[in-house]
Amino acid sequence: MAERILVINPNSLPAVTRAIDEQMEPLRRPTGPEIEVVGLPDGPPGIESQEDADNAIPPLLRAVRGRNDADAYVIACYSDPGLNTLRELTNRPVFGIAESAILTALTLGARFGTITILRKAIPRHLRYVGALGLTQRMAGERAIEIGMRALGNEAETFARMVDVGGELRDRDGADVIIMGCAGMAAHRAALQQELGIPVVEPTQAAVAMAVGRLRLDWN
Amino acid sequence: MAERILVINPNSLPAVTRAIDEQMEPLRRPTGPEIEVVGLPDGPPGIESQEDADNAIPPLLRAVRGRNDADAYVIACYSDPGLNTLRELTNRPVFGIAESAILTALTLGARFGTITILRKAIPRHLRYVGALGLTQRMAGERAIEIGMRALGNEAETFARMVDVGGELRDRDGADVIIMGCAGMAAHRAALQQELGIPVVEPTQAAVAMAVGRLRLDWN
Amino acid sequence: MAERILVINPNSLPAVTRAIDEQMEPLRRPTGPEIEVVGLPDGPPGIESQEDADNAIPPLLRAVRGRNDADAYVIACYSDPGLNTLRELTNRPVFGIAESAILTALTLGARFGTITILRKAIPRHLRYVGALGLTQRMAGERAIEIGMRALGNEAETFARMVDVGGELRDRDGADVIIMGCAGMAAHRAALQQELGIPVVEPTQAAVAMAVGRLRLDWN
Amino acid sequence: MAERILVINPNSLPAVTRAIDEQMEPLRRPTGPEIEVVGLPDGPPGIESQEDADNAIPPLLRAVRGRNDADAYVIACYSDPGLNTLRELTNRPVFGIAESAILTALTLGARFGTITILRKAIPRHLRYVGALGLTQRMAGERAIEIGMRALGNEAETFARMVDVGGELRDRDGADVIIMGCAGMAAHRAALQQELGIPVVEPTQAAVAMAVGRLRLDWN
Amino acid sequence: MAERILVINPNSLPAVTRAIDEQMEPLRRPTGPEIEVVGLPDGPPGIESQEDADNAIPPLLRAVRGRNDADAYVIACYSDPGLNTLRELTNRPVFGIAESAILTALTLGARFGTITILRKAIPRHLRYVGALGLTQRMAGERAIEIGMRALGNEAETFARMVDVGGELRDRDGADVIIMGCAGMAAHRAALQQELGIPVVEPTQAAVAMAVGRLRLDWN
Amino acid sequence: MAERILVINPNSLPAVTRAIDEQMEPLRRPTGPEIEVVGLPDGPPGIESQEDADNAIPPLLRAVRGRNDADAYVIACYSDPGLNTLRELTNRPVFGIAESAILTALTLGARFGTITILRKAIPRHLRYVGALGLTQRMAGERAIEIGMRALGNEAETFARMVDVGGELRDRDGADVIIMGCAGMAAHRAALQQELGIPVVEPTQAAVAMAVGRLRLDWN
Repeated sequence: MAERILVINPNSLPAVTRAIDEQMEPLRRPTGPEIEVVGLPDGPPGIESQEDADNAIPPLLRAVRGRNDADAYVIACYSDPGLNTLRELTNRPVFGIAESAILTALTLGARFGTITILRKAIPRHLRYVGALGLTQRMAGERAIEIGMRALGNEAETFARMVDVGGELRDRDGADVIIMGCAGMAAHRAALQQELGIPVVEPTQAAVAMAVGRLRLDWN
Repeated sequence: MAERILVINPNSLPAVTRAIDEQMEPLRRPTGPEIEVVGLPDGPPGIESQEDADNAIPPLLRAVRGRNDADAYVIACYSDPGLNTLRELTNRPVFGIAESAILTALTLGARFGTITILRKAIPRHLRYVGALGLTQRMAGERAIEIGMRALGNEAETFARMVDVGGELRDRDGADVIIMGCAGMAAHRAALQQELGIPVVEPTQAAVAMAVGRLRLDWN
Repeated sequence: MAERILVINPNSLPAVTRAIDEQMEPLRRPTGPEIEVVGLPDGPPGIESQEDADNAIPPLLRAVRGRNDADAYVIACYSDPGLNTLRELTNRPVFGIAESAILTALTLGARFGTITILRKAIPRHLRYVGALGLTQRMAGERAIEIGMRALGNEAETFARMVDVGGELRDRDGADVIIMGCAGMAAHRAALQQELGIPVVEPTQAAVAMAVGRLRLDWN
Repeated sequence: MAERILVINPNSLPAVTRAIDEQMEPLRRPTGPEIEVVGLPDGPPGIESQEDADNAIPPLLRAVRGRNDADAYVIACYSDPGLNTLRELTNRPVFGIAESAILTALTLGARFGTITILRKAIPRHLRYVGALGLTQRMAGERAIEIGMRALGNEAETFARMVDVGGELRDRDGADVIIMGCAGMAAHRAALQQELGIPVVEPTQAAVAMAVGRLRLDWN
Repeated sequence: MAERILVINPNSLPAVTRAIDEQMEPLRRPTGPEIEVVGLPDGPPGIESQEDADNAIPPLLRAVRGRNDADAYVIACYSDPGLNTLRELTNRPVFGIAESAILTALTLGARFGTITILRKAIPRHLRYVGALGLTQRMAGERAIEIGMRALGNEAETFARMVDVGGELRDRDGADVIIMGCAGMAAHRAALQQELGIPVVEPTQAAVAMAVGRLRLDWN
Repeated sequence: MAERILVINPNSLPAVTRAIDEQMEPLRRPTGPEIEVVGLPDGPPGIESQEDADNAIPPLLRAVRGRNDADAYVIACYSDPGLNTLRELTNRPVFGIAESAILTALTLGARFGTITILRKAIPRHLRYVGALGLTQRMAGERAIEIGMRALGNEAETFARMVDVGGELRDRDGADVIIMGCAGMAAHRAALQQELGIPVVEPTQAAVAMAVGRLRLDWN
């Protein structure tokens, strides 16, 4: 039977789940693994605060426990809610899109800069980069100040991402950019083109790591 | 009306809540602030894993929301579950006992060593010290390998704490010790006597910081 | 007998001693502890250089040795002169206002920015933050370029503090501000109002920690 | 045409090239990508010193320049010779097995310990971990003191790896182990079984990352 | 016989070798040690990339092996190519100009800023400062964007160095500047005059360290 | 007129001043610079505590102010008392033996270990290494537990240094050793012979740096 990667969008917004699903298309191959994207109907409506991130964990764990057919898990929120919890609960590989994006960025440049949606997320992300022990490789993080639900205004979102990405590159010294929200996924190629340095889309980065990890039979 | 510090034991074990309450006695003065200790009947029965810590957050937030009469909050679990969440939700001072114990230890020695209950908690605590940006001041963390519910065997618990504390002091170079579990509180004075270096009891450390902070009228 | 916190302004300027004393008012309660502020008539006239800081230590130690009636000590200069010396000499709690301000700031934001009086103080402060192992949590330090004795021009001082605090917030990414000189104390509330992020007054922060610490009977 | 990952063993020992090739077997699937392992006849006979690592770079670059049919490159020596050079020269993904092993270990534990062949390699590896900005996540590195050419004595090599791995786990606090030499590859499963914590084989880790990365069409 | 320091310019540009030789003049005394500057006719024509740095190592080692009359070695390229290799091969003191410049800068200020020729060198230098464990003392690095061969246009080069040095001082907080290319040597005094903070010329810094080290008879 | 390096032993023990003076012999050459070693009759009798270090500063500054004939200064106490103060006061090069020993050690190994006299000095030294931003390069510090005045028992002192140096090498992973007290100077060569790794004598290291620095005419 085909291997399966379960990508969990830990919020309840079907539009975000669909957008993530679309971005998985280039990663899907006839020979597998299957990449299934699910949302959490009982998750928070977008994750913008620490409380949203915390609240996503119980429904996320319930969703995983109901699904024994996955060979690897990807948590598709840039706060990696529940990542270490899920790793304690299963022997199967588990990836968070923030951790995966950062590890991927480390292979593409000397210092990464992160574009986030809201300024208030920055302290939460700084704590996380500190927990990863990777503060030294971080150039900075800057916000476009557009909330989850307004990301759909694509022209404005992209224009702000170009501005903020340019500041990360020119003022903070980033030589690789991470798009710090699953909802920004559609802009990766255009943003990289515009900025002239590599741009990492976190969910794609995490699923790519999962695809590779499934080849290893280490457990 | 008297000021009030609400200390929340985020597990459902009444014995732990009572033990914490007893340790508050020396901190109580007729002139206040009042120090009230509550447990979470719908919290996890002891916090030994990341999942336990995550599961404590929703009932903890519910308990806080139901209580508007507190002037400061202390989360009495050495994983500081919900600390940053609660800080986002209220203007009142919020302290986690792990953060408070570590900050207090920084004023008592050059490098702190932590005695934890179970080895499996160490990665979680290392991530947290990394998130605080304080890895450089940490000498090490060692486990007594006794679970929450077996801490009641006081003689054995204390003997193990002396052994592990001695290793932190002699092998790892700690010059101040943190007791990394609210359930160890009764052993502070004896352990300090035995080890000959300062020993920090986290809940007392946090409530002491709260007592002082209430004097400031900064918000 | 009432507990007593001795706050030592290690310079010889009575105006600074008086200003510190005024800022203690909100921390004083009828039930104690008493908070006594003293200056050092044989200390340096303001501490603006490493030499000033060094020269403050011998008179500071003499003053402490002549006073056995204090239960806790606070050294009220943002260079924390003599802090570790005094800690070696007494079992009673000793706080430096720089260390205390920084530890307090760690509970109020992800990265602190410091407003200092003179640019030449910055290397000294950077060394100190390094000695504390806390460089990772520091957003930056910027100077208003107004010396100790000119701080009395309050309007100009405040205007410069707003400018510099804004740069720390907007360019350096600070989400909590420390006023890095005891002589700036009067501006805390107005500065916090202006900047929209928490502002820490170091002497108040240190005395608040001392108030709490006195509740612990750990020695 | 099928995608191809070119794995370059940068020494001239055919036995090592063959051993690496064998370890690739579980990573090969009928649907690709192809995984080709080549040695460098004009490389150094084993890489045990900084000079060996330096000397491997020119022949490695010549080998790559002669081969335009690869979609990704893996440098199969735990010193990652030429990694950053090759990244400057090509748009295709390039992985070093040391960097890949370390990044993989970060997803499997809080602190990694490395088993190396010779004590004299440790300073070189410490510099490299420093260059990656990851010293904080490293528990330690210990040597089995068996040179490249004596690794063939498998029983003795394995026994030493178990001893050294146990020291990394018990004395240094590692919760994930990296086998710091491509020539140790055959021992991964048995070592993990013996130590009870995850063990990372670097070449497999790097090729797994390459397999996943090829799914992304980011350039 | 007189002691001799061999300074090796690891590129093949005679003009650079001559310029370095001129800067040695103030370091030469009748009583020695002799300071001999040589180029590498078979080295790369300027070191602007990681590949250039790698390619410089084999001819550099050949040149050293052919010269047994040197008492100390200085590698005069700001990438320190071959430094650790040469240290493994000889008991005599070996200095790289980047390491020496940085260690010298640590005695002259709290945070150093580096002026480099090309932006693309910055990631390479950041990795190196990380390998030295000194990222915390680095204020930043900025490029004049003038290649090795265009450095000869002295007026333009100097003007750019003043601009970039001012940015390092004012925006990044550097209080000591390192000229991050052996080819900038002639501008040290004028640049220091212009910027008002110490400026380190790396080859002079390294040879000064070598002069002193030769006094020690530690091997 | 000949250049002169003034080496100041900041304690009042003539025996220590004489011992330092003897260790300068190999650094003296007929062609200079002159190396003069002086003690401080009004300094503390040995520097074993933070208070001793603080108390050394005022007489040290008085001694320097009385001597305008020195071209460089070396402070010969492993706590570097007054180093940054003296640097603020003079344009001439000033070296502390702790900083100089550590910078020298960085060129001789990947991680330094320090042998100190008393365990109680370790927190003070850790703070200093933190202030230098060099904690990452430190393997550890261990004490022989012999006070300044008992160092004269050379056989016992040396035996303890061999024991402690071996622990730093074997348990802590040091590959270069610093003798963390000016009074240990006579044992350098024998200790290096015994341990098989480089051993740094701090006063010699500092004077060697001063000899070299005097060749530069940077001010």
